[in-house]
Amino acid sequence: MSKNLTKRSEDYSKWYNELVVKADLAEMSGVRGCMVIKPYGYAIWEKMQAELDRMFKETGHENAYFPLFIPKSYFSKEASHVDGFAKECAVVTHYRLKNAEDGSGIVVDEDAKLEEELIVRPTSETIIWDTYRKWVQSYRDLPILVNQWANVVRWEMRTRLFLRTAEFLWQEGHTAHATKQEALAEAKQMQGVYADFAENFMAMPVIKGTKTESERFAGALETYTIEALMQDGKALQAGTSHFLGQNFAKAFDVKFTSKEGKLEYVWATSWGVSTRLMGALVMTHSDDKGLVLPPNLAPIQVVIVPIYKGEEQLETISIKAKQIMAELKSKGISVKFDDRDTYKPGWKFAQYELKGVPLRIAMGPRDMENGTVELARRDTLTKETVNQDVLVATIEDLLGKIQESLFNKAKDYRNSHITEVDNFDDFKTVLNGKGGFISAHWDGTSETENKIKDLTKATIRCIPNEYIEEEGVCVFSGKPSTKRVLFAKAY
Amino acid sequence: MSKNLTKRSEDYSKWYNELVVKADLAEMSGVRGCMVIKPYGYAIWEKMQAELDRMFKETGHENAYFPLFIPKSYFSKEASHVDGFAKECAVVTHYRLKNAEDGSGIVVDEDAKLEEELIVRPTSETIIWDTYRKWVQSYRDLPILVNQWANVVRWEMRTRLFLRTAEFLWQEGHTAHATKQEALAEAKQMQGVYADFAENFMAMPVIKGTKTESERFAGALETYTIEALMQDGKALQAGTSHFLGQNFAKAFDVKFTSKEGKLEYVWATSWGVSTRLMGALVMTHSDDKGLVLPPNLAPIQVVIVPIYKGEEQLETISIKAKQIMAELKSKGISVKFDDRDTYKPGWKFAQYELKGVPLRIAMGPRDMENGTVELARRDTLTKETVNQDVLVATIEDLLGKIQESLFNKAKDYRNSHITEVDNFDDFKTVLNGKGGFISAHWDGTSETENKIKDLTKATIRCIPNEYIEEEGVCVFSGKPSTKRVLFAKAY
Ligand SMILES: [Zn+2]
Ligand SMILES: [Zn+2]
Repeated sequence: MSKNLTKRSEDYSKWYNELVVKADLAEMSGVRGCMVIKPYGYAIWEKMQAELDRMFKETGHENAYFPLFIPKSYFSKEASHVDGFAKECAVVTHYRLKNAEDGSGIVVDEDAKLEEELIVRPTSETIIWDTYRKWVQSYRDLPILVNQWANVVRWEMRTRLFLRTAEFLWQEGHTAHATKQEALAEAKQMQGVYADFAENFMAMPVIKGTKTESERFAGALETYTIEALMQDGKALQAGTSHFLGQNFAKAFDVKFTSKEGKLEYVWATSWGVSTRLMGALVMTHSDDKGLVLPPNLAPIQVVIVPIYKGEEQLETISIKAKQIMAELKSKGISVKFDDRDTYKPGWKFAQYELKGVPLRIAMGPRDMENGTVELARRDTLTKETVNQDVLVATIEDLLGKIQESLFNKAKDYRNSHITEVDNFDDFKTVLNGKGGFISAHWDGTSETENKIKDLTKATIRCIPNEYIEEEGVCVFSGKPSTKRVLFAKAY
Repeated sequence: MSKNLTKRSEDYSKWYNELVVKADLAEMSGVRGCMVIKPYGYAIWEKMQAELDRMFKETGHENAYFPLFIPKSYFSKEASHVDGFAKECAVVTHYRLKNAEDGSGIVVDEDAKLEEELIVRPTSETIIWDTYRKWVQSYRDLPILVNQWANVVRWEMRTRLFLRTAEFLWQEGHTAHATKQEALAEAKQMQGVYADFAENFMAMPVIKGTKTESERFAGALETYTIEALMQDGKALQAGTSHFLGQNFAKAFDVKFTSKEGKLEYVWATSWGVSTRLMGALVMTHSDDKGLVLPPNLAPIQVVIVPIYKGEEQLETISIKAKQIMAELKSKGISVKFDDRDTYKPGWKFAQYELKGVPLRIAMGPRDMENGTVELARRDTLTKETVNQDVLVATIEDLLGKIQESLFNKAKDYRNSHITEVDNFDDFKTVLNGKGGFISAHWDGTSETENKIKDLTKATIRCIPNEYIEEEGVCVFSGKPSTKRVLFAKAY
């Protein structure tokens, strides 16, 4: 229980790793770098999926499914793309096992070697653009607004649950357009959808911005990002949307006849968020007692724990509890009545704190006499006595307030951790002390960016959409600059 | 359009292959044996998923996610399991690509060879039971009722869209129980859930039964199946639920302490349905004009096609159409208004017939004068003139009737294609003539079963749950038998 959970102030990284496992979100599997997402964690991911899917459909997108495997030759067609992914690919080379001739067990059947190796998709641009070639002839076939929910594999050497795993779950949107303008608008629209989702559904404030050239997706002309800030002062890239220009259309020869009868290459975008958001969720809101979940994402929003001695007391409480449950369910509020007799109330309290259930109702014989319950908020750890008559209305109201309050708290923290600095000493002092985003002038070169990264591990998280035109000099090189960008150490 | 669609009577197999592609359900990808599920096909699959997921949760199951990759050594732990799947496995042997030293392109980096090969999951019993070992100590940890939505890979040599593809999408339930009785009850319950889904949601009648030993899942003690009948008289296994006994618990050492304090092995089930159901759906209801979809599964339930000359007529019709759409949507009915001016009404009619939209409304200037519309049913291809005042009520009513009527039609066909035969000549005559299920006595031996299969290609689809105790002699061997089983050629 929380007693055994490392404190954030002691070791933030250890706190995170322990919490993900203890709260039953996920665990490492016996397969190197691959995780098992446990039912409680998956239930949260399902809520993320459902809301994102709704938002994608509302903006005109449809789902489809493309192959897991990508022939090596496809992969090589877009030069910068293969450079970006070749070093971390799972490669399928054979299609059969057999019994070893010496009886030593099961071995790969060398007679079943593939003529061309298959890559387990790290992302699907290449296989999808190979398909779009068949779907697009005329401007009437455009736009294609397709999303895919899928698993992908990137062979990371150092892995952490949700944040960096060899296999992860995600969605990848892949759209095709007749004009550059339309593709740019789509890529920006999806950055907006992601920001909306992060802030209004996950209660996680984000900064919208553009990536620098060296931080762009492999194959993109522009990468739009949303950047969140974790409680340890490190940034986390929570979603990206890419304007791909005509790179993939050219690599896969996808052309269309325009209204004017001209043959032109198609314009592309792609955009994705992944189970990484689960890590961001944990690190944005949780505390030393365990998970804190915004009500929108809580698999159980309210738990009722009876406090009783003997069957008779339990029965009286159960009747009332079931009545409350029915009322809450009719309002669309998810509720669990934990009447297990194999665990004590104190154990249950700690358990639901660890799992981040937003509201806990405790009901004992005294409450039954008084027509009250004890209502506890997970986020503030405060308790109040509430009259049973107004309980459901109180809960409805509180769930909204908790959602809002979590967002405001995270936003206050984030806002107080954007620090303007104007020289490199301050840069280093803030980075290694207070942490968070550092707003500083930069000369616009990859050279400077890389030097700063080498010296401090800080990267440019983004050029914020809402930057202010301002004369200044680069915090590192002293060269002239017209705007501040955001640096941070990042996950 | 349907003009170009091969007739079922000409070549059923060709009809199916063409229809799946022309109706935009799926197509083969550039990757051997792997399909692309197109947005229209995927929208149908999503409806299947949503309903199944609801049914699983209603019966107490939760979703989780397990790794795509299975170490070869796990795979080998359950002997009959590895025998069943070893010959059709995609094997990952390397984790990196590199530029060839001779500049010839991208090649596998031989320095990045895995110590142990990884199998792309063909099914997840082994990786899941390796995980359950960590989840189970006491009887209080049981049952585990978990389902996974996932992609799996089986390296089939001969592939067909939806029916047999190297990669397919499915759900796999994996449950763990304290007693044999409970595991058996679970496996049978899920067979019931599948049958309910097939009949009441897909309008596809099925026979519930048990597989013979030689048709069982690799590693199962019993396999319960639902068997459907396609319009060409061939059977299709639409879903299976397996009682796995303690085989996987023993292979992966999963034990629990019982209430009585004894250490015992856990009992297991697994059960699954896949995108194969999409093939079953197509072949159960569709006709020579294209798809016929039960309203429950139709992405578009009603389409409105305006028939007009000039902007003014279109505008009058549009106002009415949008009013009808709003009313239909408020009843939860999905509706599309196709006012594209790039296609003629006749083209649109054929298109929506091909795509199986259950109801089509046509509205022209004459209809506007008379306050009527023309309403066409896809399943019966009949048309009627309906007063606009009663249109929405009529549609609501008709959608229910179509769903029912499709089921009854398929059931009549199925029932008239179960033929009792009592000698092997009749067996062959029915099999190669009328087709369908053959109800015949069988002596209970795999030897006879295999001989019949070799001679006729017919397999025992199942021993029906509702068999009748009856003295008889085996249709092949003449040995005594106590019940009839169902034979058929099958997909
Ligand atoms: Zn601080
Ligand atoms: Zn017939």
